Amino acid sequence: MALIVQKYGGTSVGSPERIHAVADRVKRWKELGNDVVVVVSAMSGETNRLLELINAVNPKGAAREHDVILSTGEQVTIGLLSLALQGKGCEARSYTGSQVKVLTDNCYSKARILEIDDAAMRQDLEAGKVIIVAGFQGVDADGNITTLGRGGSDTTAVALAVALNADECQIYTDVDGVYTTDPRVVPAARHIPKLSLEEMLEMASQGSKVLQIRAVEFAHKYNMPIRVLSSFDECDEGKSTLVTREEDIMEKVVVRGIAFNRDEAQLTVTGVPDEPGIAFKILGPISDANIEVDMIVQNVGSDNTTDFTFTVHRNEYEQAKEILCALATEMGAKSCGGDNKIAKVSIVGVGMRSHAGVARDMFEALAKEGINIRMISTSEIKVSVVIDEKYLELAVRSLHEAFGLDAAAPA
Amino acid sequence: MALIVQKYGGTSVGSPERIHAVADRVKRWKELGNDVVVVVSAMSGETNRLLELINAVNPKGAAREHDVILSTGEQVTIGLLSLALQGKGCEARSYTGSQVKVLTDNCYSKARILEIDDAAMRQDLEAGKVIIVAGFQGVDADGNITTLGRGGSDTTAVALAVALNADECQIYTDVDGVYTTDPRVVPAARHIPKLSLEEMLEMASQGSKVLQIRAVEFAHKYNMPIRVLSSFDECDEGKSTLVTREEDIMEKVVVRGIAFNRDEAQLTVTGVPDEPGIAFKILGPISDANIEVDMIVQNVGSDNTTDFTFTVHRNEYEQAKEILCALATEMGAKSCGGDNKIAKVSIVGVGMRSHAGVARDMFEALAKEGINIRMISTSEIKVSVVIDEKYLELAVRSLHEAFGLDAAAPA
Repeated sequence: MALIVQKYGGTSVGSPERIHAVADRVKRWKELGNDVVVVVSAMSGETNRLLELINAVNPKGAAREHDVILSTGEQVTIGLLSLALQGKGCEARSYTGSQVKVLTDNCYSKARILEIDDAAMRQDLEAGKVIIVAGFQGVDADGNITTLGRGGSDTTAVALAVALNADECQIYTDVDGVYTTDPRVVPAARHIPKLSLEEMLEMASQGSKVLQIRAVEFAHKYNMPIRVLSSFDECDEGKSTLVTREEDIMEKVVVRGIAFNRDEAQLTVTGVPDEPGIAFKILGPISDANIEVDMIVQNVGSDNTTDFTFTVHRNEYEQAKEILCALATEMGAKSCGGDNKIAKVSIVGVGMRSHAGVARDMFEALAKEGINIRMISTSEIKVSVVIDEKYLELAVRSLHEAFGLDAAAPA
Repeated sequence: MALIVQKYGGTSVGSPERIHAVADRVKRWKELGNDVVVVVSAMSGETNRLLELINAVNPKGAAREHDVILSTGEQVTIGLLSLALQGKGCEARSYTGSQVKVLTDNCYSKARILEIDDAAMRQDLEAGKVIIVAGFQGVDADGNITTLGRGGSDTTAVALAVALNADECQIYTDVDGVYTTDPRVVPAARHIPKLSLEEMLEMASQGSKVLQIRAVEFAHKYNMPIRVLSSFDECDEGKSTLVTREEDIMEKVVVRGIAFNRDEAQLTVTGVPDEPGIAFKILGPISDANIEVDMIVQNVGSDNTTDFTFTVHRNEYEQAKEILCALATEMGAKSCGGDNKIAKVSIVGVGMRSHAGVARDMFEALAKEGINIRMISTSEIKVSVVIDEKYLELAVRSLHEAFGLDAAAPA
């Protein structure tokens, strides 16, 4: 008998019919002898409906009240799923974030989970009940309702799995797992049955949308295996991807997958005085404006000046450029500019640690196609490059082939 | 400076525009130097939307889960009204029933309030904040969400007013107060500026829909004055009705108003053995089926038998008749039957206590119009009769005139 935490997203619970399908699946897992804890999101469309009401009344009021309103979406789903299970003769009990309680800090709309009280849930599990928990929400030490931000339900699921010491955290979504790259770009992309938490972490942060990065960070920190499955596979007989500890993975490969991200923009300032504190001087005001910076490259310069380049989300390109160019004038830089028609491509794999020359192979594959590399950034298990957006598909396809990831053509 | 509790129903907060209108009004009361606590219902239509979801999934599941779902309606409104007030520069803070906390028993869907913790609210009031509380909901001793049943928001408002020792509990609705009878039936009906809590209690239980009977009972028990006002009067300059202690009412009248109710049905069993316990034998099974009985009349019979008549809500007529006629056969009664085309008319007024002959005047007025009385029931401050439904309007108009309640015709 295992203890399983399952998470179902908005489309998986988007209608009474879908809720019944989820209830059928939960019941099957329960009847196999498992203890089951289910985390659900708001029904698809509901969060947007609530956001429209907020915007119609006052989009600028206290974030505390936004959370009071938004948290109702998941609260409706937990009640409905509990009712659906009860209707199938399966005892179930719903929990809001406060009722669990999922203790968070008081950073409304992006709260962090501090602690989870497992006492009440354990009692209900022992009594044979299925437990349905509202994802995305918690409560601070003063009893205020908080939310964890978009995608927070994945984090709730992993955190509950850790708190309950679950055997597995299952994330049901609309795909049947993680692929070597996006099959829409490379039809030969292969399904990955197992990969390490660290690889998933890099894949997620490099643009793979299958799992929320915060949830993977959490799972990585506490070594909680995550299984990604499709909620549209009615019989639990399809494929899935298990994201687990590196030690538990038999198949060793150098490159596990190719991640990419086209939502990036690049900003460059040239000829700034090469002196201590220059990076902070440039990035401080960007960060103060709440703009997240991804890759950062600084070149050694000549004439006591240096060139500085970084990337931001494409939506924040104009705002970042305005801040940067004002700074550039102030600092007497030579030029200031950018490009929002770029994309980032990354190769990811724990095998890189013990294999030299992986970056070299990557650059060679891109050079063969005549693709110019604008920026390079590396970590222990990842190499990322920034290229012109127009070469993105070509780059992904050629890297996918170069690292032997293409599925064998059918005989 | 006064402490005011205001309650706004579903139509008063039915859209972002209406919520802004409520916020404007709350702000005016606050700026006059009052401490203001506001109780709100779900936006009109929202509770029905949630009920439809429940019915689509499983209408028969645990009432606990129904309450989890239904309580979200008010939770959305408290957040939105707080945001609207903040947008107008008025500090406001929302409270769910659990956050207050409004402690109830655990009778889901019709919970009773046991206790209200006023500590957090008092602190916020002292800090100059307006407090917005979700009506209709509470929390039991184990932290389960409960609801108080339809119309429970009025009860929440009165209970909060009592707990906070408020100066007045204002119920905003779509009418500007209580009238001597329904103006749609008697155009000459007069607005009542003040009436006693006891009179309101009888009016409410006799069919006047302005206030929920449970709320009036609560106010009566704790002597909390209620003011009924229209939320569609934008300037607070219109009429209102103050429902208060009898001692505080100057104008003494014999009959305050005429209440009526057409949702009744009558059931009669004749020729049952006249022996101790017969009333319980008949009404026990009716009550066990959760059917509420209103008026009960038993006649002294001859031949050691008696006739027994009672009224129930019209919706429950068929079910009650089935139960009663089965019983009648069992008891060897002479006949069993009923009529669901009846109506009840009541005259209400504390002045009756000291005036003899009020019932006589009522019967005389009805006799003059040739209206046959089927049942009579009296209390200290009320006389009710059951008549054929087709005579209802005629009866109400003639009683309204007979007791001098008609408004003077304009000169």
